[in-house]
Amino acid sequence: MDGHAISMLGTGLISDFYTNTLHGQRGRDRVRVVYSRSDARGQAFRERWDIPESTTELAAAIEHPETDVVVVALPNFLHEEAVGLAARAGKAVLCTKPLGRTAEEARRMLDMVESAGVFGGYLEDLCYTPKTLKAVKAVQDGAIGDVTWVRSRETHPGPHSAWFWDGRLTGGGAIIDLGCHCIEIVRNFVGKGNRPVEVLCHTDTLVHPIADEDNAIALIKFESGAIGQFEVSWTFRGGMDLRDEVAGTHGTIWMNHFLRTGFEMFTAGGGGGYVAEKAETSAGWLFPVGDEVSELGYVDMFSDMFRAIDEGRAPQETFYDGYVVNAVMDACYRSAKAGAWAPIEVDWRGGTTERIAATPERFDGQVVIKREILPDGRHKLILKDEASGDFSDRVVAGA
Amino acid sequence: MDGHAISMLGTGLISDFYTNTLHGQRGRDRVRVVYSRSDARGQAFRERWDIPESTTELAAAIEHPETDVVVVALPNFLHEEAVGLAARAGKAVLCTKPLGRTAEEARRMLDMVESAGVFGGYLEDLCYTPKTLKAVKAVQDGAIGDVTWVRSRETHPGPHSAWFWDGRLTGGGAIIDLGCHCIEIVRNFVGKGNRPVEVLCHTDTLVHPIADEDNAIALIKFESGAIGQFEVSWTFRGGMDLRDEVAGTHGTIWMNHFLRTGFEMFTAGGGGGYVAEKAETSAGWLFPVGDEVSELGYVDMFSDMFRAIDEGRAPQETFYDGYVVNAVMDACYRSAKAGAWAPIEVDWRGGTTERIAATPERFDGQVVIKREILPDGRHKLILKDEASGDFSDRVVAGA
Amino acid sequence: MDGHAISMLGTGLISDFYTNTLHGQRGRDRVRVVYSRSDARGQAFRERWDIPESTTELAAAIEHPETDVVVVALPNFLHEEAVGLAARAGKAVLCTKPLGRTAEEARRMLDMVESAGVFGGYLEDLCYTPKTLKAVKAVQDGAIGDVTWVRSRETHPGPHSAWFWDGRLTGGGAIIDLGCHCIEIVRNFVGKGNRPVEVLCHTDTLVHPIADEDNAIALIKFESGAIGQFEVSWTFRGGMDLRDEVAGTHGTIWMNHFLRTGFEMFTAGGGGGYVAEKAETSAGWLFPVGDEVSELGYVDMFSDMFRAIDEGRAPQETFYDGYVVNAVMDACYRSAKAGAWAPIEVDWRGGTTERIAATPERFDGQVVIKREILPDGRHKLILKDEASGDFSDRVVAGA
Amino acid sequence: MDGHAISMLGTGLISDFYTNTLHGQRGRDRVRVVYSRSDARGQAFRERWDIPESTTELAAAIEHPETDVVVVALPNFLHEEAVGLAARAGKAVLCTKPLGRTAEEARRMLDMVESAGVFGGYLEDLCYTPKTLKAVKAVQDGAIGDVTWVRSRETHPGPHSAWFWDGRLTGGGAIIDLGCHCIEIVRNFVGKGNRPVEVLCHTDTLVHPIADEDNAIALIKFESGAIGQFEVSWTFRGGMDLRDEVAGTHGTIWMNHFLRTGFEMFTAGGGGGYVAEKAETSAGWLFPVGDEVSELGYVDMFSDMFRAIDEGRAPQETFYDGYVVNAVMDACYRSAKAGAWAPIEVDWRGGTTERIAATPERFDGQVVIKREILPDGRHKLILKDEASGDFSDRVVAGA
Repeated sequence: MDGHAISMLGTGLISDFYTNTLHGQRGRDRVRVVYSRSDARGQAFRERWDIPESTTELAAAIEHPETDVVVVALPNFLHEEAVGLAARAGKAVLCTKPLGRTAEEARRMLDMVESAGVFGGYLEDLCYTPKTLKAVKAVQDGAIGDVTWVRSRETHPGPHSAWFWDGRLTGGGAIIDLGCHCIEIVRNFVGKGNRPVEVLCHTDTLVHPIADEDNAIALIKFESGAIGQFEVSWTFRGGMDLRDEVAGTHGTIWMNHFLRTGFEMFTAGGGGGYVAEKAETSAGWLFPVGDEVSELGYVDMFSDMFRAIDEGRAPQETFYDGYVVNAVMDACYRSAKAGAWAPIEVDWRGGTTERIAATPERFDGQVVIKREILPDGRHKLILKDEASGDFSDRVVAGA
Repeated sequence: MDGHAISMLGTGLISDFYTNTLHGQRGRDRVRVVYSRSDARGQAFRERWDIPESTTELAAAIEHPETDVVVVALPNFLHEEAVGLAARAGKAVLCTKPLGRTAEEARRMLDMVESAGVFGGYLEDLCYTPKTLKAVKAVQDGAIGDVTWVRSRETHPGPHSAWFWDGRLTGGGAIIDLGCHCIEIVRNFVGKGNRPVEVLCHTDTLVHPIADEDNAIALIKFESGAIGQFEVSWTFRGGMDLRDEVAGTHGTIWMNHFLRTGFEMFTAGGGGGYVAEKAETSAGWLFPVGDEVSELGYVDMFSDMFRAIDEGRAPQETFYDGYVVNAVMDACYRSAKAGAWAPIEVDWRGGTTERIAATPERFDGQVVIKREILPDGRHKLILKDEASGDFSDRVVAGA
Repeated sequence: MDGHAISMLGTGLISDFYTNTLHGQRGRDRVRVVYSRSDARGQAFRERWDIPESTTELAAAIEHPETDVVVVALPNFLHEEAVGLAARAGKAVLCTKPLGRTAEEARRMLDMVESAGVFGGYLEDLCYTPKTLKAVKAVQDGAIGDVTWVRSRETHPGPHSAWFWDGRLTGGGAIIDLGCHCIEIVRNFVGKGNRPVEVLCHTDTLVHPIADEDNAIALIKFESGAIGQFEVSWTFRGGMDLRDEVAGTHGTIWMNHFLRTGFEMFTAGGGGGYVAEKAETSAGWLFPVGDEVSELGYVDMFSDMFRAIDEGRAPQETFYDGYVVNAVMDACYRSAKAGAWAPIEVDWRGGTTERIAATPERFDGQVVIKREILPDGRHKLILKDEASGDFSDRVVAGA
Repeated sequence: MDGHAISMLGTGLISDFYTNTLHGQRGRDRVRVVYSRSDARGQAFRERWDIPESTTELAAAIEHPETDVVVVALPNFLHEEAVGLAARAGKAVLCTKPLGRTAEEARRMLDMVESAGVFGGYLEDLCYTPKTLKAVKAVQDGAIGDVTWVRSRETHPGPHSAWFWDGRLTGGGAIIDLGCHCIEIVRNFVGKGNRPVEVLCHTDTLVHPIADEDNAIALIKFESGAIGQFEVSWTFRGGMDLRDEVAGTHGTIWMNHFLRTGFEMFTAGGGGGYVAEKAETSAGWLFPVGDEVSELGYVDMFSDMFRAIDEGRAPQETFYDGYVVNAVMDACYRSAKAGAWAPIEVDWRGGTTERIAATPERFDGQVVIKREILPDGRHKLILKDEASGDFSDRVVAGA
C-alpha cells in the first residue's frame, strides 16, 4: 500500500517522537529528508531513524522533489516561515503546536494554506490520545449528558530545551507551551461548534527566574454555558501530570494519561535508563507509561492526518483549530493582565450551540432538586416550590 | 478518666456524624441532652444514640445543669443565637461549619465567646482528616519545600437537606456549603500565619433551578505568593469527590479522601444498604470508605477540641479561623459579582509571612533553570544568562 | 466513664502500636504498668507513653493489684507463660498474634483461659481494619453472593526485630509472622462457621540466608467449597503490601490497606522522618497511610475487646480463633513438606456450612452458562444442553 | 512500502481483534481472504473489514495464490489441520493461543512448520502489551535485580463463545483459555532460557455447571529457583482483570492491563454502547481501556511477527514457545489430579540458568538480614551470626 514521503523539519525531542511514531509498528509512511540548522544533529537524526537524507537548507527540505508532506517540528518562531514555504511548494503541511505565537501569526498561517489550497493539519497530539478519542465519542453518544465543566491539566518541572523558556521565541510561558493542549482538549469535549466567548485567567511566576509565567489557570466560558478550565505549570514536582476531567449533567469522565496508568515499578536503583518523558527520578517508585507515542496520541494523530489527506477531507485538528487556540491564549494573556474576564476575539466559523439542558424532574407539583438514597434504603427528595422559593424534604419509599 | 458532658443542638445528618464519633470506639465524652425543633426527631435521636434526654427548648438544652460543652449542629441561620446562649451560659461552644453566613455574623460570634471568656472551637472536620494532619506535618517539616499552590476540591450531587439549598438560610450556595472546608484546608497548608490577601472567583448556576451557585472556583492569593485554589460543585455525578493537592518547590502531595481510598466493590446488586455519604448507586462498581468518621476527620477533630479544653489551650481550629473563612467567602462573592480580583477584608491577627523562597542553582556563572535526565543517562541543563536574558542548553555527564 | 487498667507486657514495636492506640484520641482505658526484660527499655516506654510504673518482673506486672486486663505483646515463645500467669491471676488476657508457635501450644493457652474462666481475646488487628469490617458486613448482607475465593496478601521486606527471624523462638518464618493474619482474614470472609478442611502450601527461602521460609503461598479448602489463598513474603521491595480480595458469585471486593490508599507524596528529599511501617525510602514517590493505628485495625480491635469484656460477651477474635489459625499453619508446614494437600487437624466447634450455591439461570430448556453484552447492545447467551453436554451460542435482543 | 497479504482463518471475536489491528492506523499489511465455516459470517466479516474475498473452503483460503501469510484464528481443535495445510503450502503461519490442546498436539504442529521450513509465529498477544514489553526490558536491564516470583492473573466472567466451554474441543477449561497467556508472560519475565521444572496446581469448578475447571491456580518452579504463579478464573465479577506482578531481589513491578488504567467513567445511563471486552455493566462507574488492540498487545505482536518474517529471524513468540506452554499446562492438569507437584515434560532447547543470586551484605563479621529506617532516622540492622544461628538487633546512625 502506498504511503507518504515526508520532509521532517527539526531534530528536537518532538521530531524524535514524530519519527518514532511514523517509522514505528507497520507504518507505510516514511521520512524522506530531515532538516536541521546543525549538520551534525541532522546527520545523527538521519542515522537514528534510518532516513535517506538530511540538509541544513530549510527550503531544500521543504521542496524536496520526492516528498508530498511537510512536518513542521521547529521552535514556534520558525513556524510561519516554514508553513509559507510549504504552502508555496503546494505540499500538505502538518504543523506542531502551538500553531503561532499569537492569533495574528496563526491567522496568517491559516490564510497561507487556504489561499494555496494545500492541506493544513494541526499536530495537537493530546486530542488524539486513545482515551481522549474514546471519551469524546462517549460524550457525543450522550453517556454523561450535557457537558458542564471540563478540566484539563498539564504540568511538569519545565521544558527540556532552552528556547522554550524564552518568551521572545515562543510567545509566552507555560500557557503557550502547555495551555494550547488543554484548550483544544476542552474544545473537543464541549464541541468544536461551541463558541469560546470569554476567559478569566491568572498567570504567575512562582519559582523560576524567568520573565514569563511558570504557572497559570484559566476559565473559558463557552456559548452553551459550559466552562473549560485549564491548569498548567512548569514547577510541578514528580514527573509529568496529564489529567483531563469532564463533568456532565449525567456523568463524569476522569482520564490520567501519564503518571497513573496502571504501571508501577519500585527499584532500589541500578537498572538505569529512561523511564518516561519528564521523569524526575530513576529509583524508588516509578510510573512508566506503556507505549508513549500511542498513549500520548501521536499514533492516532498521524493516522488521522494521512487518512484525511488520502480521503480529501479535513483532519480532526486543522489550522483553523490552531488559530482558535491562539485566539483563546491571546485572551488569556489579556485577562491575566487586566485581572478580569476578557473577550475572545476570533473569526468564528463554528455556528451556534444551545444552552446546557436543564429540565428538572417534577414530583407532586414541585421541582425535584435532588434524589438521595438514605442509609435505610428509602429515597429522600429535596423539593422546591417555585412560587415561594421555599425548599422542603420529602422521604419516600425506595425506587 | 473523666470526660465531657455535651449538649447536642440539632438532629440532622451532621449531628448523627458527631454523636457517632463521640459515642464510638472507647470515647469518654457523652451527649447528655439533645435539642431538636421537633419532639419526634429529638426522641428518635435520643434512642438512636442512647442519650438520657431530649428537649425542644434551645435554651434548656444549652443551659442543662450537667453539661459543660455545647455542640452547635444547627442550620447556618441558627448559629448566632445558639452561640450567644452558650457564651452567656459560660460553656465551651463548638460550632459546625461555616461559622456564620457572612464575616460580619461570624465576627459577632467570635466577639461573643471572647468577651464571655469561653472556649470557642470551629468544627472544621476536613482539616482534621488523618491524611491532612500527616500531610500538614510533612509540609511543616519541609518535605515539599515552600508551598506554591494548594488545590482543594469538594464536589457531590448536592446536599441532603432542604434548607441547604435556600441561600436566605445559609448565606449562599456551594461556596458556603463546601468552599468553607476548602478555604481552611488551604490555610493549613500555606500556614495559618500566611495572610489571604485577595481572591478571584467565578460562580455559576449550571444545572439546578436555584438562585445560588451550584458550581464555583476561586483563587486565593496569600502574602507569601502562594495560591490557594478551591473548586466546589453541587452537580458532580458519581458520589462525593474530596481531593486535595499541594504543590511545593521540592515536592507534591495528593490526597483522595473519599472515592478512591483503596476500597473497591463490584456487586451485581442484591446486597442493598448504605455505601457511603452521597453515593449514587448501590450496584456496579462502588467505592466505600473504611471508617467515615475517622477518614473525614471527626475523630481527630473532637479529640483536639476536648484536649484543648482540658489543657486550657486553643484548638487547631478556632472561631477566629471560622471568621477568616467567612471573610474569604465574602470576598469570593464580591469577586464573582465583579468578575475581577477582590481584596479580603479581615481583622488580621496572623503576623507576616515571607515570599516563597527561590534561590536557583548556578552553573558556570549562569542560572540553572532546569536539570533533566536524558534517555541516555546524561543530564541536560537549561541555563539562563542573566545579562542577556538568553537561554541555552548544556548537556553534562550524569550526577 | 470507667475504663480498664492494663498491664502491658513488652516494649517492642507492637507495644508502641497498642499503647499509641489505647492512649490515643479520647480513650478511657490506660496502661497502668509495663513489663520489659530490660529496665532501661521499660523506663523509656513508661516515659514515652506517660505510664505510672514499669517493672522487670513478669509476674509483678501481671498481678499488679490495680489492673484488670493483661495485654501480651511479647515474642511468640513467651506467650504461654504470660497467658498462664494471667489466667491464674483471674484477669482478662489479650494476646498478640500468633497465639502459639503450634496448635498444641495454642490449645494449651485456650485451655488455660477456659478453665480459669477468664476472658481471652486474640489481638488479630487486620481482621478489624475499618475496610475489613465494612467488607465483611457487606458479604454477610449478600452484596457479592456466595464467597468463592478469598485472597489475602501480606508482604514486606522482612520483620524489624531479630527474634522474628529465629524460627526456634517464633515457630516458623513468614507464615508464622504474616500468614496468621491472612488465615483469620480469610475465615472472616468465608464465615467463622465454615470449617477449614485441608491445605496445599508451598514455602521457599529465596533471598535471605535463614533456615525458615521467606516466601509462602497456601490454599485453604473450606467446607463450603470456598478457597482461601494467602501469600506472604519477607522479600517484597517497595514497602508493605497489604491487600485482600474477595470473589463471590455476584460480586468482588478489593481492599488495599497500605501502599495505595489515596495518599501520595513526591519529595525531592529533605523532609526526613517517618513515612510508614516498613517504608523503604524517604524520597521520590512515597505512599503514607493516614492514621496507621486506625487503618491497621488497632482502634476497632481494642474497642471490641473492651466492649466485649464490659458486656460479658465473646469478642470477634477469640483464643479459639487463634488456635484454629495455628492449626491451619501447622497443616501448611506439613503440606509444604509433603508437597501435597494436608488435612487440618482441629477440634472443630463451628458447626457446618452448605456448599456454594449454584442455581444457574435457564433459557429455553437449557442452562445459561453466561450472558454477555455485545458491542451492538444485543445479549449473547451461552447455553448448555445437559443431555448431550453440547454448548451453543444464542444472540437475543438486549434486556 | 510492501506489506503482507494474509489469509485470515476464522471470523470470531479474535479475528475481529486481529483484523482491526492489521487494518488499523497506517498498517501496510492486509487481509486478502477470510475463511469461515459459514458463508454468511464470512460475507459479513468481509464487508466489515473491507476484505476482497471470503470462502468456506479452508484449503482454498490457505492456498490462495496472492497471500503469503496464514493467520489461524480458529477454535483450538482446528489448529492442527490448518497449520498442516499452511506448512504444506509453504506459507508463514501465525497461530492463535493456545497452540495445541496438549503438548503432543503442539509438538506435531511445531514439527510441521520446522520440517516444512516455514515461519511459525505464536500469537500470544499479552506478552506484547506495551507495558509488558517495557517491563521485560527493565527486568533484563537489571532494574529489579533477580526475579524471584512472577504473578500473572487473568480472570473474567467466562468466555464469549460456546465452543470455549467444551473441553472436548479446547483441551480443558480456564487454564487452556487463560492460563496459556499467564504461563508465557511468566516465562518472559523469568527468562525464556529458564527451564520450567515442575508445577503445583489446583483446579476447581466452583460456579458454572461444566465439566472443566472454572478456576485454577498454579505454581511453576523454574531452574533459577524463581516461582511463576498464575491465577485464572471464569467466575470473576466486574469485568476482565488482567494483572501481572513481578517481584525481584531489588524491586517490584505491578501492571494492570485492563480495569484500572487511568480511565474512569461514571454514567447515570443512557449513552449505551460498547465499553470494553468482558465489561459487565453499561451504567455506574465504568473502566474503559484507551485503545484495546494496542493495550492488549495486538499491535506490537503483529509488528514483531511481520518484521521477523521480513528480517528472516524468529519472532519473540514462536511455535516452540507455544509448545512449552502446552507442556506446562499438561503438567498442571496432572498436578491438579494428583494434588501434588508434577514434573514438566518438555524437549528443552533453552540452555541453563543460574540460581537466584544471594550475596548478603555483611556488617561486623555477621550477615545483614535486613536494614530498616526507624522513625527517628537511625538504621536498625538485623544481624545473623552464622556459627550459632542466633539473630540480633543493632541500631546504627542513619546512612
